Amino acid sequence: MNTLHIAGGQVLRPDMTVESADVLVDRDEGTILETGTLDADATETLDAEGCLVMPGLVNAHCHAAMTLLRGYADDKPLGAWLQEDIWPAEAALTPEDVRAGTELGILEMIKSGTTAFADMYFEVPEVAAAVEESGVRARIGHGVVTIGKDDEAAWADADESLDIAREFDGAADGRIRTAVMPHSLTTVGEEYLHELAAEAHDDGIPVHYHANETTDEVEPIVEERDERPLAYAKSVGMLTESDFVAHGVHTDGEEIELLAEAGTGVVHCPASNMKLASGMAPIQDMLDAGVTVGLGTDGAASNNDLDLFDEMRDAAMLGKLASDDASAVAAPDVVRMATAGSADAIGLPGGRLEAGAVADIAVVDLDAPHLTPANNLVSHLAYATRGSDVRHTVCDGQVLMRDREVLTLDEETVKARARTAAADLFERV
Amino acid sequence: MNTLHIAGGQVLRPDMTVESADVLVDRDEGTILETGTLDADATETLDAEGCLVMPGLVNAHCHAAMTLLRGYADDKPLGAWLQEDIWPAEAALTPEDVRAGTELGILEMIKSGTTAFADMYFEVPEVAAAVEESGVRARIGHGVVTIGKDDEAAWADADESLDIAREFDGAADGRIRTAVMPHSLTTVGEEYLHELAAEAHDDGIPVHYHANETTDEVEPIVEERDERPLAYAKSVGMLTESDFVAHGVHTDGEEIELLAEAGTGVVHCPASNMKLASGMAPIQDMLDAGVTVGLGTDGAASNNDLDLFDEMRDAAMLGKLASDDASAVAAPDVVRMATAGSADAIGLPGGRLEAGAVADIAVVDLDAPHLTPANNLVSHLAYATRGSDVRHTVCDGQVLMRDREVLTLDEETVKARARTAAADLFERV
Ligand SMILES: [Zn+2]
Ligand SMILES: [Zn+2]
Repeated sequence: MNTLHIAGGQVLRPDMTVESADVLVDRDEGTILETGTLDADATETLDAEGCLVMPGLVNAHCHAAMTLLRGYADDKPLGAWLQEDIWPAEAALTPEDVRAGTELGILEMIKSGTTAFADMYFEVPEVAAAVEESGVRARIGHGVVTIGKDDEAAWADADESLDIAREFDGAADGRIRTAVMPHSLTTVGEEYLHELAAEAHDDGIPVHYHANETTDEVEPIVEERDERPLAYAKSVGMLTESDFVAHGVHTDGEEIELLAEAGTGVVHCPASNMKLASGMAPIQDMLDAGVTVGLGTDGAASNNDLDLFDEMRDAAMLGKLASDDASAVAAPDVVRMATAGSADAIGLPGGRLEAGAVADIAVVDLDAPHLTPANNLVSHLAYATRGSDVRHTVCDGQVLMRDREVLTLDEETVKARARTAAADLFERV
Repeated sequence: MNTLHIAGGQVLRPDMTVESADVLVDRDEGTILETGTLDADATETLDAEGCLVMPGLVNAHCHAAMTLLRGYADDKPLGAWLQEDIWPAEAALTPEDVRAGTELGILEMIKSGTTAFADMYFEVPEVAAAVEESGVRARIGHGVVTIGKDDEAAWADADESLDIAREFDGAADGRIRTAVMPHSLTTVGEEYLHELAAEAHDDGIPVHYHANETTDEVEPIVEERDERPLAYAKSVGMLTESDFVAHGVHTDGEEIELLAEAGTGVVHCPASNMKLASGMAPIQDMLDAGVTVGLGTDGAASNNDLDLFDEMRDAAMLGKLASDDASAVAAPDVVRMATAGSADAIGLPGGRLEAGAVADIAVVDLDAPHLTPANNLVSHLAYATRGSDVRHTVCDGQVLMRDREVLTLDEETVKARARTAAADLFERV
């Protein structure tokens, strides 16, 4: 059998306990065969001595190609930031730029232990190619905006999102899944939302959108319709079990109930919410209500990295402030959010290290001064670990990074291409 | 001349501009001789190709030995956390434990580009020995608590803080400075505060204390004295230009005016304030009022690391939420806070990279995916850099870390000693 043996480490169980165990992976099936004390005669071995072996992290909401815009426009509120900086720059992006930026984003994610992500962008065939090449898992899709467009252009954009979702679902041996991605409830008109959701669900494809990110996204809907945004989302058919929303910052108790009843996932993006001063999402309330909560970095322009360890720390800390309670959003909660919570929210396998699960794995080196002493490893994951502590990354049974060397992408080439793309872009805009 | 040449990098100027320049250091004097294009025939050279050369970061408030308690007690509010977990564990610490924990903290700081810190703890001779040995710069002192003690024990504690401050001021060739450190305005009685401040200031020694960290530290003072805590601090003589307070979370407009008028520094500890749900300090208001604001990690038990790059990111993000304004506490502000702001707040030299300044320097490698592309290096320092991107660290003209190898402490020994100390400690408590 074609196996991978991850040897000599400690393993993080789905119940957030830690025990010494090896992990044996079926490389052909891309699944975990067993964990325990294994005397394996494996095809390939990864040394995990002094390491914590955990599920690969799942970045449940990002715009990977926005790495090209990292640090380009900081310290501005969402509206001005989008209209004055981000959208003009994005309008100038070529397909090659999207490819370069997405590869840089995936490189950064592999190097920080992320094995799967949900991506909303455009030039999606380029995104798919980058996912296929790099070996990660992703749910990808084309973001639709209809406001400011005539009916023909708006339908063309909506149709592109549907066509792309149908074309790429199941690509890259199943590592690529898709969603239809209307940008938000305020930037896409009601008839388009209705049609997109109906057609997507007919084909078993979920809908992914931004919702309740700022008060500016809530108030117009409440004023116009006399209902909350997520009630509106439900009325247009976008609040089913397969769907997932990014942000959910300004979400009231009734909306939290709607999310819990529907089984719709929420992707919490604490860094982006802080950096754009959007507000504090009621994450502890969502967890208490049984909402499936995942964790996302959002784009690198509002973060400014794609490191889910940073995001876990941010989520734990912001959750306490939001609840005015230092016991809220505890370390195990954020580790669960970044793994099983994210995977469940976006409907990809993963997030749990156990026999039968997909072999999406991050191996974290615990030897650094900032992880010493090892009083509580789950605490260390939530508060003190950073992406650079990840030693090996495995997805679908394949080793994507070994001893910090990424094997599926050439790091120097990816960085050089991104630098050139960004330099050219900022000459054009 | 005995010189160090930091060659081929870009330099961060005090005005937050960046330019290509070498840096030449007088190793005997521990100062920067000049910057520019230098064809130096130096005693020692540090390669800074592809790097940003910046002032060493200054951690203006911490309790370094608390690294031993990293992750020991998370997700609890300040009062319960101190009384149930932290104080009992600290009561069991031996002098050797304090030495081991402080060395671990300093190791972590050197590895993340911090060259100076302010430390409040006990067993201060051990702290001084660790500072001397490791080559960093520090303002150290003995923390005083008088509540719950009889008069004799309380005066003994207060006297120890004074004696320690007098004994160690100027030690380690001047790298060690001291302060008298009453723990806070609510844990030390008025007569002790008065006496400590008067005696310290007579000897030119500043006073460092926690203030306005939680509402529980504000309300009793307002109720008992009908004045705000910092007005009370002023009345007992602890609000002079040399003094500095940690936190200042719940600080009103009049108190901000008092701080600005007095020239008293405030050390912002955003991670600790979030993790303990203490609240959001009005940092932009303080900056607008001209208050000297520095940045601190607080102890590792409420952070859980001593990485000032994390802290810059936290400060920029939390500052926006606190002001409900995404343009508040911008990237250059937090970089200034972590360098010149901190140095000025705690009254140590440093924080500026220019001829004549002390040679306390961090060299940051810009080559990582998460720092690509280099659209804005000050933004990258604030939002995307992490301590592990620091390549070399220099303090007082001496290289403390070269190519990530710490030269003044043996990393493996320090980590092993800390692990043993923590394991023994948690058997005792
Ligand atoms: Zn987004
Ligand atoms: Zn403190």
